[in-house]
Formats: sequence, structure tokens, C-alpha cells
Amino acid sequence: MRLSRYFLPLLKETPSDATVASHRYMLRAGMIKQNSAGIYTWLPLGHKVLKKIEQIVREEQNKAGAIEMLMPTIQSAELWKETGRFDAYGPEMLRITDRHDREMLYGPTNEDMITDVFRSFVRSYKDLPKMLYHIQWKFRDERRPRFGVMRGREFLMKDTYSFDLTKEDAVKSYNKMFAAYLNTFARLGIKAVPMKADTGPIGGDLSHEFVILAESGESEVFCHRDLVEMDPPGDVDFEGDLSHIFKERTSLYAATEEMHDAEEFAKIPEDKQLSARGIEVGHIFYFGDKYSAPMKATVMDSDGKPQTAMMGSYGIGVSRLVGGIIEASHDENGIIWPKSVTPFGAGVMNLKPGHDESDAVSEDIYNKLVAAGVDPLLDDEKGSIGVKFSRMDLIGLPFQIAVGPRGLKDGSVEVKDRATGEKQNMTPDEAVDLVMKAYA
Amino acid sequence: MRLSRYFLPLLKETPSDATVASHRYMLRAGMIKQNSAGIYTWLPLGHKVLKKIEQIVREEQNKAGAIEMLMPTIQSAELWKETGRFDAYGPEMLRITDRHDREMLYGPTNEDMITDVFRSFVRSYKDLPKMLYHIQWKFRDERRPRFGVMRGREFLMKDTYSFDLTKEDAVKSYNKMFAAYLNTFARLGIKAVPMKADTGPIGGDLSHEFVILAESGESEVFCHRDLVEMDPPGDVDFEGDLSHIFKERTSLYAATEEMHDAEEFAKIPEDKQLSARGIEVGHIFYFGDKYSAPMKATVMDSDGKPQTAMMGSYGIGVSRLVGGIIEASHDENGIIWPKSVTPFGAGVMNLKPGHDESDAVSEDIYNKLVAAGVDPLLDDEKGSIGVKFSRMDLIGLPFQIAVGPRGLKDGSVEVKDRATGEKQNMTPDEAVDLVMKAYA
Repeated sequence: MRLSRYFLPLLKETPSDATVASHRYMLRAGMIKQNSAGIYTWLPLGHKVLKKIEQIVREEQNKAGAIEMLMPTIQSAELWKETGRFDAYGPEMLRITDRHDREMLYGPTNEDMITDVFRSFVRSYKDLPKMLYHIQWKFRDERRPRFGVMRGREFLMKDTYSFDLTKEDAVKSYNKMFAAYLNTFARLGIKAVPMKADTGPIGGDLSHEFVILAESGESEVFCHRDLVEMDPPGDVDFEGDLSHIFKERTSLYAATEEMHDAEEFAKIPEDKQLSARGIEVGHIFYFGDKYSAPMKATVMDSDGKPQTAMMGSYGIGVSRLVGGIIEASHDENGIIWPKSVTPFGAGVMNLKPGHDESDAVSEDIYNKLVAAGVDPLLDDEKGSIGVKFSRMDLIGLPFQIAVGPRGLKDGSVEVKDRATGEKQNMTPDEAVDLVMKAYA
Repeated sequence: MRLSRYFLPLLKETPSDATVASHRYMLRAGMIKQNSAGIYTWLPLGHKVLKKIEQIVREEQNKAGAIEMLMPTIQSAELWKETGRFDAYGPEMLRITDRHDREMLYGPTNEDMITDVFRSFVRSYKDLPKMLYHIQWKFRDERRPRFGVMRGREFLMKDTYSFDLTKEDAVKSYNKMFAAYLNTFARLGIKAVPMKADTGPIGGDLSHEFVILAESGESEVFCHRDLVEMDPPGDVDFEGDLSHIFKERTSLYAATEEMHDAEEFAKIPEDKQLSARGIEVGHIFYFGDKYSAPMKATVMDSDGKPQTAMMGSYGIGVSRLVGGIIEASHDENGIIWPKSVTPFGAGVMNLKPGHDESDAVSEDIYNKLVAAGVDPLLDDEKGSIGVKFSRMDLIGLPFQIAVGPRGLKDGSVEVKDRATGEKQNMTPDEAVDLVMKAYA
């Protein structure tokens, strides 16, 4: 993409209500625009990151055997009355009346609806286990939306639902999602620690939050330091036994504020005790028959007896992750994108548009990176060199290639690694090569 | 995907309210489930088709130079009051009051909001032309939703908005979208004819609907027969002059019912007069300053004088297209998917699961097609051969490969072309080859 043709409306001033880094940088880097409190337009740069995160989440769900579908945003209140949640959910639920005076709502989550889909079609234990997911916009009418996309009202969530015949089988599904989440967050370039969590309005008796540690985190979390650096499971057989992955993590202490047990925490060797601020980016629940019992979602077992399906649900905050990743990866000059989710693979800066050689070399590098599938951004705008460099730092592409008359005198361009700040002079072809190899 | 692990809940009975083929087949083939009137869950098979259509629409928009972003579903009423549409839109607009008693709505379209985005950021003629689009769920509270996803209440639309300095430039943007739409529909495997159209609640003085001809169409359309078989423009330079593409089509008569001129129509040679039922799948509008004037969306021209941006909008009904394609491509046994949007590239039927050779050969074909990226569906379920064949016909994959003991005796499998019904016996490797070549 050429910057001259793109739509990248940067802000010079930081809006005063943006109190955390991700909110500030997303506004300043032209990633989002607020339309109403907690409701945002995803401008092209922000939209690209959102889509990349969504795709990684999708691929890891598919690997784990979950099947994608899509439920609507607007739901009938009837299902929520069956489970008792229509009254219980409170003012965070956006309640709607349609033209025929039917009670509707904008789904804040989908346990009730997926249970209805399940009971409509699934009759036999032979069809289990089943894990279904969708990636859809949700709405929670937060009293005080804040922190930009981290606590917005309209937000994009991936939610998976598992159906099993027995609790034992349901725990296997839980372990699949547990492992899939570890891989997902690792691919997104963040360290998310699974922590014992409160189940809140979803309910159930087994629940983990996946938490990024960041100063701006909304709540305090406590864990064994080793959990932070633990490698993801990687290539695993999702049909096999995954309990060791679950056990390995949960044998070490990790809990959110609500579930914190100071006495247990004190038993960790002191140098391994970590208390920090955390951002929840995923949350998984096992809740058995909480929805399937009132909604009569039963299947026949092998003896022909009806059994209530045992369920779990598994959420990842896709839009929230855009903010979460920035909270975990930025400096005083702007965002530092992990390579897996960067909106463009590299930025090529033509420091002097109109200068023949500067034009030719920057175009050539740009075209080679396009051909290599790196999806570069070419800054072909006229303007001061200082503006160009600070703009590139702000939007945080992993590599910056600066092309200008001064360097070209001895045939070189400057490549900067955004994360380390390291700069190197090299030939244009070496620069292309370096970037291509980084994405190979 | 293996059918035994998939979620494909077929219906034996056709619900009585499904009066058109696409609605019937989408329900029977387990593509959708109705949740409320005009509101559907996209089950896995339907979701795959929806995503494929979305991706083709996206790619053709990108080729034309439109830039993707994403606006939210919930909008503040304030913007709509600025343009006067809040009162004008009528009961089809789903009006919502949030917990702080603010007037909101579920966007039925986005002219008002995109104009607000534009005026917030764009200041100079140098930033024009600009074409921005998003693919987002919309809601229109139809009084009587019907025809399944063809006239639902919650529906997925691609809407593009163009901003130009002058009407002349705006017409160039209009022509870009005109050409891009012709290519889009051709890639989707359908013949959509651009027809002079009424502008309805969007407004403006230049408008075309893109219409599929199908018996179940909602309205009558009239056109010169040659338009139906005209080739799409294909690879064009979107920076160049595209007016010839526009002129070539619009020089022949084509109009929707509202714009029909019987006298003009009668001038077409009689054997070229075509009057038929049509389904609108795209609609493009030039409306100048209808939104930009009241919302004061101005840019500075080269003389430093403020000029009101000239706008157009361009919609494609992505979810409606799933139904539209089926209306245009089905027979009495089920759906016939065009290769570009088929949910799976081919179906492999193991006619006798448990039979060693039948298992081995069907698995081998399946694995080879997976490796080739054809994304096959393997019917590995026990059950009658008749059920297997009729299920495959119903879901409409372009190729069916039947593997059973009888054929394997002389080393052959049967390949059926769903569209032509033609059946051929060949070796398993020949079958793989045939399918791979069809998608190459």
C-alpha cells in the first residue's frame, strides 16, 4: 500500500480521555475513531490488525477441532427467559423492542442461543463431542466504557461452546481449549498466563482466565513466575490426552484477585512470587448442565436413555486483544507490533520523493516486498524526514527501511528493527532479503 | 472435513413457510437455522459459503482501490438527525435506547456515519479521491421478513463510499465500482445485469441495480437480452478511463419496474426483448452532496476554497447473495454450487464404511484432495447408499466421487459432475486429477 493512497488519519494531539497507552496510540495512529461512548470505527490500519488476530484465533480453533458457524447479533428475549438470564443479566444487556413489540436484545454472549441450536438438531451421543464457535460482535452496555477498545460496549469476541455426554468428556474439551488458547496467544506474540478465575454471570465450577501482565491492567493478579515464560504446547494431538498440559500449568499457583488465596501464594518461593496488574484476554468455563438442563438439551446415550449435555464455553476478546497487545508491546514513541499481527510487514520510507534515485530504489524495494507477500507500506508522501520517522515509530511496523539520497551515495539504505531500535546500513537487496527472511 | 465430525444438520421435511427454493434448500441442507423472524444462525455449511462470497467481494473491492475499514453496528441517532434521516427512515430502522437513555439505532446503512468519519479527518483535495468500504451486519426491521436470507432483518452487506472533489471525478468512482461489480458477480458464478434503478431512501440522481434473473425474483425487470451474456471487463486498469465499460452496458435498455419505460423497451428488436423476474444483489448510487452538504463535509480545493465532497455509495448484499446464487443455480434435487463459492470443493462418498478397500481408497482420495487444497468433504457415515447420494445432491458440491466395493472390483470409482449430472468411471488417481484440474 502507498501511503499517498491510504487512509491513515494520524492525530497530533492525544485526546484527554485516553488514559492508557493502547487507547492513546490507537487514536493517534489512526487505528480507531470513537463514534459514541465505547463504540468505535475501525479505521483501515486498526481493521487490518483486528482481522489478523481474528484469523490466528480461527486457525487455532480449527486445529483443535472446533467448527465455525455464525450466530446473529440480535436475539429473542425468549431464550434468555428460559435460562433465567433475561432478568438476571442487568443493565449491561442492551434490550431492544422491535416494530412488532417483541422483546429482543443485542447478544452479550451466546450460551442460551447455542444451546437452542444444539437441542434443535442433536439427538444422539454418537454426535458428541461437538465444539462449535463463532466470531461475532457482542454488546455490553457498560456503565462507564473506558480504555478504548479494552472496555468498549460493542466488541468482537470469539466464543466456542462444547457439548459432551459426561463431565469427564467435557473436561477433555476444556483441556483442548486450554491448550489451543496457549498456542493462540503465543502466536499473537503475547505471554498470557492461565489463572484460576471467578465464573461471574456465566456460571460453573471450573474456570480460567488467560491474563496478559501489563501495568495498565484492570485488576491485580498473582502467580508463580515460571508460568510467564513457559513455552506453549505447540503441535499437539487434539484427539489425544491433553491433561498433562493442563496439569503442568495448574500445578503452579496462579489466581485472579477474586480467587486469590494469600496463604497458598505465600508458599511459593519468594523469588518466584509475582504479583502484577493483568488484562484478561481469554476466559474459559466448564458449567455442566447450567444451560442444558433448563433448556432440556438432551441426547440419547448408548442405552437409549436421555442425558443432559455437559457444556463449557470459551471466549477470546478479539477486539480487546488489539489493545492488550499494544499494552504489552509499546514504548514512548509508539506501538511495537509482533510480526504475526502487524498491519504491514515493513515500512519503506522514501525520504526525498521527487529525487530520481530515491524514488527508483524505494519503489524497487517496495515492489520486491509486495511480490514476496510481505505487504509493505510505502511512505511516498512529501514532508519532513522527522515526520516520516516519527510516524513510522508510532504505527510500529517491525521493520523500517529508510531510502534517501545521502545513503544512496554509497549504495546503502538504513534498516531499523522497531523492537530493538537497532539500525543497520546495507544494500537495498540485503534489506529486502532481511525482511523476507524474518517472515519466512 | 469428515462428515462424522462435522455439524451438518439436514432437515427431512421442508418447513411450510419456505416458499422459494433457496430458503427451502438452505434449511434442508443445514446451512441456516431461523432464530427469530428474519434472523438466522449460519450453520457451518452456510457460514463457509457466506465467507467465500465475502472474500471474493473483498478482493474485487481491493483491486478497484477501495480501502477496507469497519464501522460499528450500533450508531448514535445524532448523525441521522443531522441528515434528517432519523425521522425519515420510518419503522424499518431498529431504534434503541441505551442505559443512559441515549437514542441509538442498529445501522441499516452507513452514509451518515462515513460522512462523519470523512469530515473528521479529511481536509484537502489532495487526499481525494477516496473510496472506503466495510463488510458489516446491518438491520432493517422489515414488516414481513420472508424468502429466508433474501429478505432477512439482520443481513451482511458490503458498502463502499466514494468521496470526490467534483461530480466529474465522482462519476469516475462510480464507473470503478460499476466495473468492479461486474467482475465480482462473474467470479461468483452468476449473471447480474446492471439496470437503471430508483434511488429510494438513499437518494441521488444516478443509480443502478445489479439484478440476477430468476423466477422467484421479487420484482419485474426489463432488459436487452444481450446484456445477460455480456462478458465481465476482467483485468482493467482502475486508474484509467472506465467510461467505455459503463457506456457499453448502459447503451442497451435495462430497467427495474420502477424505472421502466415501455415505449423505450418497445424499440428493442422483439427477439432481444427480455422481461423477467429479478433479484437485486447490488445497488450503486451517486448522490453528490446529499449527505456532505448538511453534514458540512468539505475539503479545500487547489485555490484554498472549501468545496463540499461529492459522494456515492455502493452496496452488495453478501448474505442475500447466498440465497440469490441458489435461486440461479439449483435443480429438483438440491443446490448446484458454482466452484468459486462451494462450501467444499468435492464430496468423497465412502459407500461402505467398514469395508477395507472402500475405506482405504476413499481415505486416500480424501487425503490427496486435502493436500491439493481442494477442501473436500468425506462422507464416512454409515447409512444407506441412497441417503448418501441424495445428501450429496442436496448440498450441491460440484463433484461427487463415489467409492464402493462394486466399482473397486475393477479398480474404478464414479465421478459425478453435479451441474451436468454426467457420471464417469475412472481410477481413483484419475478422479483426484480431474477435481484438482477443475480448481487449478
